[in-house]
Amino acid sequence: MRAVIMDAPGEITVAEREDPRIVEPTDAVIRLTATCICGSDLWPYRGVEPADHSPMGHEYVGVVEEVGASVTTVKPGDFVVGSFVISCGKCEICVSGYPSKCIHAEFVAGIGTQSEKARIPLADGTLVTTPGLPDDSLIPSLLAASDVLGTGWFAADAAQVGPGKTVAVVGDGAVGLMGVLAAQQMGAERIIAMSRHADRQALAREYGATDIVTERGAEGAARIKELTGGLGAHSVIEAVGTEESMLQAIHSTRGGGHIGFVGVAHEGVQLPLDQLFFAGVHLHGGPAPVRRYLPELIQKIWDREIDPGKVFDLTLPLDQAAEGYAAMHERRAIKVMLTL
Amino acid sequence: MRAVIMDAPGEITVAEREDPRIVEPTDAVIRLTATCICGSDLWPYRGVEPADHSPMGHEYVGVVEEVGASVTTVKPGDFVVGSFVISCGKCEICVSGYPSKCIHAEFVAGIGTQSEKARIPLADGTLVTTPGLPDDSLIPSLLAASDVLGTGWFAADAAQVGPGKTVAVVGDGAVGLMGVLAAQQMGAERIIAMSRHADRQALAREYGATDIVTERGAEGAARIKELTGGLGAHSVIEAVGTEESMLQAIHSTRGGGHIGFVGVAHEGVQLPLDQLFFAGVHLHGGPAPVRRYLPELIQKIWDREIDPGKVFDLTLPLDQAAEGYAAMHERRAIKVMLTL
Repeated sequence: MRAVIMDAPGEITVAEREDPRIVEPTDAVIRLTATCICGSDLWPYRGVEPADHSPMGHEYVGVVEEVGASVTTVKPGDFVVGSFVISCGKCEICVSGYPSKCIHAEFVAGIGTQSEKARIPLADGTLVTTPGLPDDSLIPSLLAASDVLGTGWFAADAAQVGPGKTVAVVGDGAVGLMGVLAAQQMGAERIIAMSRHADRQALAREYGATDIVTERGAEGAARIKELTGGLGAHSVIEAVGTEESMLQAIHSTRGGGHIGFVGVAHEGVQLPLDQLFFAGVHLHGGPAPVRRYLPELIQKIWDREIDPGKVFDLTLPLDQAAEGYAAMHERRAIKVMLTL
Repeated sequence: MRAVIMDAPGEITVAEREDPRIVEPTDAVIRLTATCICGSDLWPYRGVEPADHSPMGHEYVGVVEEVGASVTTVKPGDFVVGSFVISCGKCEICVSGYPSKCIHAEFVAGIGTQSEKARIPLADGTLVTTPGLPDDSLIPSLLAASDVLGTGWFAADAAQVGPGKTVAVVGDGAVGLMGVLAAQQMGAERIIAMSRHADRQALAREYGATDIVTERGAEGAARIKELTGGLGAHSVIEAVGTEESMLQAIHSTRGGGHIGFVGVAHEGVQLPLDQLFFAGVHLHGGPAPVRRYLPELIQKIWDREIDPGKVFDLTLPLDQAAEGYAAMHERRAIKVMLTL
């Protein structure tokens, strides 16, 4: 099969890889309908993380081709959406709502789903079937549910977004924009998107942002305080993962307020602990437990209540993956879908 | 009046200061019955923070001597307990349960309560009266409510301690020990105190600890995992405030679990953000909103349901404050009460 391989930082090829097959009785093999490029795929692309002939991709929707003997909830022919973390669905951590911290958790990034097919371990705990074969127009949104929508949704949930609340969103990438959408769906009264890019501001407004703040860092936090009577936002979504963005989030939050923290922090990023302490906020985040939200999100997409797929502003065939990476790297695209 | 003054790091004197008087109509002047030395008073004592003829102390119980014209909830003759943070009780942040982040918040440490009298601003929002004049035997416990009990209680609440939960407590100082007491009161199933000092272990057991772990750092966290079927504790109280203790807390907590973070972090303490991110935990803390808990805690003390005052293992008259500081600095005492 064809698969995206990053030979070295910045070097993307679409090469032949061996077809995946069932290894464990809990596996499923799926044929991908669509996949995409994540902001986190840009780290090895930019040399921040190593890349050495690495298979790429962790977001995926597709049709089940084959299942292992013990798989019971999906069968060949089913259309499925899966989380970017493999989870068993049965352990105490999964049952408590944290499948991304499952005792058998494995990042799909290590498997690679920018490819024609993929083996998905622990299929029963990881994959969710759609109500039927989806219309083509639903594919982008279902694909978004696999990571960015689920992550933005978790961030809003972790930030305790709800009616009457003012929400600030730090980060205008795909996850931040999905955080805006989630905040709107959860009934937030006011949603302040922090962005200085016109295209992202426009999409944020479309997804429900009521205010745009272009300042960053301490100035950005001061602007949020100013917009909230000096108190700070009730709920803040942090969708970047740097020291600057985290401090911006911390200082944008009122005492006792909540931060949903989903920007992936790299090794080496340090947070001044005294600033977190004296802020007196709640902080919750990490790799999003997307699997928890998938049934609800798939239904909302199926019923066309939400259209997260608009976050894909460039669609290319898998063979042109290299151009997709370049477009995201150069910020010509927010998020790139790859079709098969 | 007499008052404890830290002339320079390590140099404690009891000197004459001018008697406090009503300045604002919202002030009260109290005559202290007892006060105490806090772990945080050791920072300037040890030269970690500056000290230059500084008045000391932020924990206090006593009798109201005089109130300003607009004070309505306390009157001369009342016995009162107050928080270590001044709060108005009326702003949106106070009303939401975070008086320690009140828009008028002021640390009592800047006032100094290791003295015969003290002026307490915003008396209505800060002080709570006891049901009557307390028996002498209740004074230590009421004094503990002013900071260490209230802080330990908040930590347990922030860590979502409750029935059926396993709780780990990082730090065996007065606040950590109060966290053990709070966890027991909140119905925790298992309380693991992390301590390597026999006297503190004994008091932890008395307050409800079911297990003692002597390992620290990564080894300590590994031991907590081992004791919890590989998962980690549901709730962890962090009562130290260093990078090592915070990482110990983070890695002792299960995915989706809760950390109550009350160890005061110094300027310069850095937390590796990726370790917090990938742990997938809830973190909440900061200067404890003690005022929120005072009515409930005073009642429990009054009814002799709890005896937090045992945390004072050395009592001295105010004039011997220097010996009290030395005893805490040299770990000869957990916490020192000063009587007047």
